[in-house]
Amino acid sequence: MTVNGNENTSVKSPPEIAIIGGGIVGLILAAGLHRRAVSVTVYEQAATFRESGAGIGFNMAAKACMEMIDPAVITALRLCGGVSFSSADPVDPHDYLRWVDGCSPDTQKVSAQDTVELALGGWQRLYLKADAGYKGIEGTRRDSFLEELGKLFAPDMIRFNKALADIQDVGDNEKLVLKFEDGSTAFADAVIGCDGIRSTVRNFILADGMPPSKPTYAHVQSCRALLPMAEAIDALGKETAAIYHNHIGPGANVLHYPVAGGSMVNIAVFIHDAEDWTDVSWTTRDRPRSVLEDAVKDWNPRIKSLISKLPDTIPVLGVFDMHDYPLARYYNRRICVAGDAAHASSPHHGAGAGMGIEDALCLSSLLAEVSSSIRVGDASTSTALETAFQVFDKMRRRRSQWLVNSSRRVCDLQHSSDLGAANKTVLVDAVFEEIMDRTLKIWQFDFMGMMRESVELYGRTINKLRASSVKK
Amino acid sequence: MTVNGNENTSVKSPPEIAIIGGGIVGLILAAGLHRRAVSVTVYEQAATFRESGAGIGFNMAAKACMEMIDPAVITALRLCGGVSFSSADPVDPHDYLRWVDGCSPDTQKVSAQDTVELALGGWQRLYLKADAGYKGIEGTRRDSFLEELGKLFAPDMIRFNKALADIQDVGDNEKLVLKFEDGSTAFADAVIGCDGIRSTVRNFILADGMPPSKPTYAHVQSCRALLPMAEAIDALGKETAAIYHNHIGPGANVLHYPVAGGSMVNIAVFIHDAEDWTDVSWTTRDRPRSVLEDAVKDWNPRIKSLISKLPDTIPVLGVFDMHDYPLARYYNRRICVAGDAAHASSPHHGAGAGMGIEDALCLSSLLAEVSSSIRVGDASTSTALETAFQVFDKMRRRRSQWLVNSSRRVCDLQHSSDLGAANKTVLVDAVFEEIMDRTLKIWQFDFMGMMRESVELYGRTINKLRASSVKK
Repeated sequence: MTVNGNENTSVKSPPEIAIIGGGIVGLILAAGLHRRAVSVTVYEQAATFRESGAGIGFNMAAKACMEMIDPAVITALRLCGGVSFSSADPVDPHDYLRWVDGCSPDTQKVSAQDTVELALGGWQRLYLKADAGYKGIEGTRRDSFLEELGKLFAPDMIRFNKALADIQDVGDNEKLVLKFEDGSTAFADAVIGCDGIRSTVRNFILADGMPPSKPTYAHVQSCRALLPMAEAIDALGKETAAIYHNHIGPGANVLHYPVAGGSMVNIAVFIHDAEDWTDVSWTTRDRPRSVLEDAVKDWNPRIKSLISKLPDTIPVLGVFDMHDYPLARYYNRRICVAGDAAHASSPHHGAGAGMGIEDALCLSSLLAEVSSSIRVGDASTSTALETAFQVFDKMRRRRSQWLVNSSRRVCDLQHSSDLGAANKTVLVDAVFEEIMDRTLKIWQFDFMGMMRESVELYGRTINKLRASSVKK
Repeated sequence: MTVNGNENTSVKSPPEIAIIGGGIVGLILAAGLHRRAVSVTVYEQAATFRESGAGIGFNMAAKACMEMIDPAVITALRLCGGVSFSSADPVDPHDYLRWVDGCSPDTQKVSAQDTVELALGGWQRLYLKADAGYKGIEGTRRDSFLEELGKLFAPDMIRFNKALADIQDVGDNEKLVLKFEDGSTAFADAVIGCDGIRSTVRNFILADGMPPSKPTYAHVQSCRALLPMAEAIDALGKETAAIYHNHIGPGANVLHYPVAGGSMVNIAVFIHDAEDWTDVSWTTRDRPRSVLEDAVKDWNPRIKSLISKLPDTIPVLGVFDMHDYPLARYYNRRICVAGDAAHASSPHHGAGAGMGIEDALCLSSLLAEVSSSIRVGDASTSTALETAFQVFDKMRRRRSQWLVNSSRRVCDLQHSSDLGAANKTVLVDAVFEEIMDRTLKIWQFDFMGMMRESVELYGRTINKLRASSVKK
């Protein structure tokens, strides 16, 4: 970044932002910029929106950020909204996450001295019931949500079939040149990569001599399946099947929640895997159901019954994240990354997309400031943009990399070999203070503080640069 | 616990409390009870106060609890007060904990892109500087503090040479009978064990069928030594030697802070130990200095120089804690445990005694309520005392067992094999968000909330018992 006396005389056109990747974070960021009158174009490599039909849930922090980004984003979520996690309870509209003992036998007696509550029906021990707030976690299908978000933009703001090949920086007072695989070219004052864990934009972030950054295998296999509600009730009982439960035990956890208006149950099984994931293409492997049955073979009969109802062959996905090789910075001059491209996490907090939405709020606020700075002649376009990205890195990197680490940690705790052991029940209970703290750190995020501090820090940094420029 | 109609007619004498153990937590609890006009006697097995001349520091949460227990406790601390951790800085009266890279070579270059601050003098990388507040951590010698605390009591309130042999419960309306090793006997309405990690009172807490509880080896060796300040400066430089630093690296950490008016530096070295601690008597082993030299043989030359100045032979202590076998409850009818007797922790948060002082505040508030309940005829003495201990367990167990776990976790993070590796610097930085969160959870404890909730819960429980007793 250079600041010199000439810059104040250069043309101050409003900045144009290119977003690479039309996923949830890319589109929500585009909505935030559009609402703040910042010119933005989204480039998506696929022919249509790329997300699958899988489900996604947003906690209260993520939803509050959506509201600040643009209330239209919340409206879009609700237009394709799913079922509340605790929809089964007519008198309590709060959502809860419940961690329950998945591996002790049904017949376990809990003594009067044991102060731990029993789960519904008294079958399993309830470790923790975390209150996610009034209609706290709202879920939907990823593809439906993207379709609704897409309606917020004029058609030419989203360009499909644009796979990024290169970004060329030809000088501070010139626009960046984006080259695509199809031979076409585009121009922008800044590029924001929201292109997911296999980000291309990330390749333009690090300089020589910085520690390498890449996703690696989190040593967990993820298996997802849908069951009709009636079959889930047959296995788990009505009260358990109808609401979110996370059944935990040594080396695995099984979580489920209602989808599709309560007619189906979405089941996710995570299995610890000491081996490496050798499939470098990251494609899903089809595995026999016996893989899951082996993981829960000593568990509570209700869980074994649930697993027995799954299809004979189940797609198993290797979970990858950026834990081992995190990014040293989230920006390089006028290029930055956000969401999974910056900090792909394993899914054990259910907060990966939410962290990207926090990023989007931070960037929306900062780029609105950039527009003002340029308009009033405080800084050149490139200086203002680089300063905004520098502040973004400072505000977001520590928290988002914490999430990556914390998700791994929570998985380790949920898969501990101590779980279910008769002489380890007190030790296991004591772990949930930490799990609750980590959950609250995500849910109770001070997004107003983030916005305020981001804008303040941006203003201070620009003022300092201007002062040093005037001295010269 | 039984409640029956007869109890309200039994004699309601003010309760007499016996504290087993005249350590810091025992004496501070005695001060809190004495101030609240609750009758208390301390029984100490040694002939004098048993603490050594080693140093101890109290953070802001612990000091705030002391103030609420009895301002005379804070006065006692200050009468024998030590040196502030950051006494070297004449313009900043705040104390800080500093985590620095102990193992990278002096010559490490930090690039302009690297946003991590440098430690004083620019020799080592500063990972985290945690602000402990205005004169945040106040330290003293354990023996001096006990001597000052002892002056708060009439001589007959503290009985020396009283090693507990047995506690006999001869009925709800009778006093507990305490039997001592010397054949003598004492009576009390309740017994509180503040008798440390090797607690005798703990043997009276658990019932058959509960998970066992005992201290085990934390797989860390602790070595402590004092050096004249001039020698520490010779090794570390003046600015580093004069204030608290925690130098961390793979398998070990070295921390130091000024004592004795700044004329000496207290040095603690913690070394990871994969082996078992076979010395069942827990006595200290004398080991050659080479054990420490081996642990830091690839470290920064300043640290190696510091270690080389230590005596040829150094006492090495095995660190034990209650992590592996935590207590299922902190009370059994009218007997309870507090401080290390309940939740002995490894020392990596420097907060073990502070957690016991939080216990003492909780018990002081509750036992003052017990006196009122009995006076106004709300409950029998034994019902009121058992209810108070039940509330104490509910209010204190989760947080104090969290500390035990968190101290182990912080040690693991501080001893990570990733530390000092050139391609792991970003990963290591990201860990400090967690260390800061854990530190703040200790320092920013809501002690007013604890007091309020304890008293409320006690009142509600007693009312409920009385209501059910009246119905009968």
